Amino acid sequence: MAIMAPSDKQLTGLVAATFTPLTEEGEINISEIGPYVAYLTERQGVKNIFVNGTTGESLSLSVAERKILAEEWCKKAKGKMDHVTVHVGCMSLKDTQDLARHAAEIKADSIAVIAPSFFKPKNAQELRAYLKAVASVAPNLPFYYYHIPSFTGVNVLVRDLLDGIEDHISSFRGVKFSSTDLMDFGLCASLMKPNWSLIYGVDEQLLSALVLGANGAAGSTYNYVGCQFNKMLAAFEKGELIQARTIQFQLQELLDFAMKLGFDLGVNKQLMIDVSGLSLGPPRLPVMRCPPDVAASVKQKYHSVFRQ
Amino acid sequence: MAIMAPSDKQLTGLVAATFTPLTEEGEINISEIGPYVAYLTERQGVKNIFVNGTTGESLSLSVAERKILAEEWCKKAKGKMDHVTVHVGCMSLKDTQDLARHAAEIKADSIAVIAPSFFKPKNAQELRAYLKAVASVAPNLPFYYYHIPSFTGVNVLVRDLLDGIEDHISSFRGVKFSSTDLMDFGLCASLMKPNWSLIYGVDEQLLSALVLGANGAAGSTYNYVGCQFNKMLAAFEKGELIQARTIQFQLQELLDFAMKLGFDLGVNKQLMIDVSGLSLGPPRLPVMRCPPDVAASVKQKYHSVFRQ
Amino acid sequence: MAIMAPSDKQLTGLVAATFTPLTEEGEINISEIGPYVAYLTERQGVKNIFVNGTTGESLSLSVAERKILAEEWCKKAKGKMDHVTVHVGCMSLKDTQDLARHAAEIKADSIAVIAPSFFKPKNAQELRAYLKAVASVAPNLPFYYYHIPSFTGVNVLVRDLLDGIEDHISSFRGVKFSSTDLMDFGLCASLMKPNWSLIYGVDEQLLSALVLGANGAAGSTYNYVGCQFNKMLAAFEKGELIQARTIQFQLQELLDFAMKLGFDLGVNKQLMIDVSGLSLGPPRLPVMRCPPDVAASVKQKYHSVFRQ
Amino acid sequence: MAIMAPSDKQLTGLVAATFTPLTEEGEINISEIGPYVAYLTERQGVKNIFVNGTTGESLSLSVAERKILAEEWCKKAKGKMDHVTVHVGCMSLKDTQDLARHAAEIKADSIAVIAPSFFKPKNAQELRAYLKAVASVAPNLPFYYYHIPSFTGVNVLVRDLLDGIEDHISSFRGVKFSSTDLMDFGLCASLMKPNWSLIYGVDEQLLSALVLGANGAAGSTYNYVGCQFNKMLAAFEKGELIQARTIQFQLQELLDFAMKLGFDLGVNKQLMIDVSGLSLGPPRLPVMRCPPDVAASVKQKYHSVFRQ
Repeated sequence: MAIMAPSDKQLTGLVAATFTPLTEEGEINISEIGPYVAYLTERQGVKNIFVNGTTGESLSLSVAERKILAEEWCKKAKGKMDHVTVHVGCMSLKDTQDLARHAAEIKADSIAVIAPSFFKPKNAQELRAYLKAVASVAPNLPFYYYHIPSFTGVNVLVRDLLDGIEDHISSFRGVKFSSTDLMDFGLCASLMKPNWSLIYGVDEQLLSALVLGANGAAGSTYNYVGCQFNKMLAAFEKGELIQARTIQFQLQELLDFAMKLGFDLGVNKQLMIDVSGLSLGPPRLPVMRCPPDVAASVKQKYHSVFRQ
Repeated sequence: MAIMAPSDKQLTGLVAATFTPLTEEGEINISEIGPYVAYLTERQGVKNIFVNGTTGESLSLSVAERKILAEEWCKKAKGKMDHVTVHVGCMSLKDTQDLARHAAEIKADSIAVIAPSFFKPKNAQELRAYLKAVASVAPNLPFYYYHIPSFTGVNVLVRDLLDGIEDHISSFRGVKFSSTDLMDFGLCASLMKPNWSLIYGVDEQLLSALVLGANGAAGSTYNYVGCQFNKMLAAFEKGELIQARTIQFQLQELLDFAMKLGFDLGVNKQLMIDVSGLSLGPPRLPVMRCPPDVAASVKQKYHSVFRQ
Repeated sequence: MAIMAPSDKQLTGLVAATFTPLTEEGEINISEIGPYVAYLTERQGVKNIFVNGTTGESLSLSVAERKILAEEWCKKAKGKMDHVTVHVGCMSLKDTQDLARHAAEIKADSIAVIAPSFFKPKNAQELRAYLKAVASVAPNLPFYYYHIPSFTGVNVLVRDLLDGIEDHISSFRGVKFSSTDLMDFGLCASLMKPNWSLIYGVDEQLLSALVLGANGAAGSTYNYVGCQFNKMLAAFEKGELIQARTIQFQLQELLDFAMKLGFDLGVNKQLMIDVSGLSLGPPRLPVMRCPPDVAASVKQKYHSVFRQ
Repeated sequence: MAIMAPSDKQLTGLVAATFTPLTEEGEINISEIGPYVAYLTERQGVKNIFVNGTTGESLSLSVAERKILAEEWCKKAKGKMDHVTVHVGCMSLKDTQDLARHAAEIKADSIAVIAPSFFKPKNAQELRAYLKAVASVAPNLPFYYYHIPSFTGVNVLVRDLLDGIEDHISSFRGVKFSSTDLMDFGLCASLMKPNWSLIYGVDEQLLSALVLGANGAAGSTYNYVGCQFNKMLAAFEKGELIQARTIQFQLQELLDFAMKLGFDLGVNKQLMIDVSGLSLGPPRLPVMRCPPDVAASVKQKYHSVFRQ
């Protein structure tokens, strides 16, 4: 069995999937990471981050850029955040292993990996073989599988992947589950070990996963509705379902509005900029910058929904 | 505004979507309907039925057969059941209207209608126009939209359909929502009127809809796990989430097992026969009869999961 | 082996999938069928029709309406057309059998059947069992399977269905193949018997199927580009590919234009009305009537593309 | 207008999409590239290659590996091959640009680029912006868009992309079109400029694209059925459709057989090894090595189909 660092404690609560700060010219801008960490902890009450994930446009970054970013996030989060997960998944196993090794070096708290989505694993066996090959190069680093079939097109049932996974990956610690298939989620919940975490990733229906036993939630919206969702978690814990629902429905209302205007990562990043005041820059191609009129409408909706 | 019968009270609790009893030769067998009603009320504690729906293979029945069945269900349920909803949706508006008129004549408590799925409404406006044309021929009969995109391929957002629907369909009373999109579900919950019902139809993740405010649940499994799910509803009401989850996970375990053996309507009907002892006969082509070895395995799993 | 009528000769050439004439009030209008037949034979040079198919909105018609229409088409086509195929497919086997028996009575030249699409056959065995049950009630009527996965969602490989089908359905005479999977089409071509026909149903890429050995073509556009496509067939026969391509590309240009305006059955029917001058009425709900501005644009495009 | 090297002549005929030679340990093995080139030119009569594409598992390679491979292919093909296209598409624009610059340095004859598939361009405008940013760093290198929606999930109509593309990308020279949508293909054929090429990439239905005006064909199977498909091209040119069809149907028969055994890149690579005798090694995870029994069956089928 792998010997883990003392920091190997169960991941719970809200996790912000961070946007990647870029300059106006589209280059990575690590100078904004310190202020970003301060914003999350002080203004949103969020103490965990998921770095270089989907929200961070990691698949649009080079391996070198991802390393620089990961290192800076770990550095700036040290002492201020409870947990930094670095997403290391790429299309290529080689690159993924490279990033996993690097994450161990920079002392990330954990790594997460998506299924490769160009050549897709067809079943749990193929996916497990791939994930095992990643985990093997960083055997002491807590490992999470990041399930996001809407992006990857990989629909391997997570419950089948989990079956006996600790025999293949001793550093396995759980799943970031970003799918609406809550039967699969529930069956995963049944299979959880004491130190594993089942982190839900569809922000707009988090309450539905909490009731099945989610340990926490990771997503992009917690960058700007972290305060509100901390209240939602607390309300749920106390059994105050009316209040929990109210907050959940507010986010649904915002996202419904934004989706009808073409919600994508470009719009999402702009909303974060508008709410936080951080200088995060544009998204990367092929994601396009949010049109100003859309940005203004979504910002206004945000404030009208979440004011008070 | 339409004047409704005194029976127009809000639909809540468990609703069994009934299987259609056939003879071994494949003809409808109304003689089994009386025993079926007795079984549901006495053995499962289920007091509401959804007749001629997906579980009842209504799209494989002729209009004439559907009328005979609907009439018999209403007759036998009278005084024993709280609510009989007759599903009247067909591919053809003509046939659907014919069945809606008939449901009014036989004094069904309500009707439900799927979106036509061969020629598919492309947006809320087209779907609303179609549903309005159905409702208009039975204006005093409580009306439910039955949303089941996995079968119909019609993914019109229900929240968009609901927007102002009472101005078009004064008999509108709610939705049977059989989709895993719980953001849409939540937004529908926000839009509910006092006498409407939001009935969830994905049995294997019911708890996730209850927490968002579902008024009840309609599905095929409540034919054979009605007792257990009545307990689940009660546990949820009392805030006993551990117990509620346990029951939800049991159903997930059973269905996961069955799905891996090829769970379809043929297997489902056979399980109901094996659990209930009713003579429901085979399914209709193109659904095939459950192979005996699959039937035996699923039955055994049922008893091992739900024993006590 | 079934004994066929002398008319059992191989189906070849263009087949117009007919629109269903309705009154402005939406009732079937059989008085327009005679003029429709005259138009096709005299103005378009089309001698075969496919009645009550997708173009005819058959799934939006009642069984009774379909019988009246089929009978009238057969009557009016007698002596003027070479071949009348009546599509008898419904969601329900009962209704399909009813219509198949009726087609035999009214002496249709052949029947065609889609796969049921609400409850979907999962493999060739299930589809074959269903089709066999249909054919068995009209054993002397030439039988075609109508493959249209974009509507039915049934993706059973036709090559697998054909394998040994003559042992199950002695009246089997071929396939109306409306899919872009030309590997499956080619493998079907390899399996054809001398008196079978492989009729292609994706008008906008007919040339691609001809080169693989299609015997003919059935579709809605031959209602209004029959003349041109008869020339295309002749050009292909003579090896004049440049000319054949030119005509094919003209249709693609028209459809591309129409698709960008929202081409559906309502637009298609309106174009037919505008080109032919026939009084075909509106489509049926859930298909909506073509907006006037779209109708005008598509009509203009038709004349600009096909003028000469 | 960009000034192109004298080698900027129109691409036509067969193009083999090359497999990537690996050692048994899974590292790139450039020593097998020389023999591979000799095999293609001498044994298969194939004079064009498409390097680091889907068949070459490029998305499973690191950028550094892709450079080494591209350079070696160019070096070994020099004087023996007519045309080397280097595929440079990655998920990240940065990496793609890096590889495009490198391809110019090593004097590849052209580059090709897939749409990024993790963050997907949603329309022609977004895709064009991305492709333009790639082409801009290698402005004198003939540029091909590689359309393969079954892998990328990007279904932007190519005809829309082509509209005016020469104003954005002066080095644009055509499309590798790997889709079964032959209406889109035909409309692209209508839009071709004299020095552009429309290369079809669905080997199993090549004949259907030739008849619409394809200039050539690129695919993995031409690695092992190049001889036969050169005969097919010649037969088509001479109007000998029966012979052309026969060869096309042979490939369909082989692939149908292989697909039913689970045809993927692992099986495909193994077949190439078995037919060619080259030492190409295993595929990369997540693609799994072909099981021996499958390899034996597919090899036997190959020889029984193509023996002569």
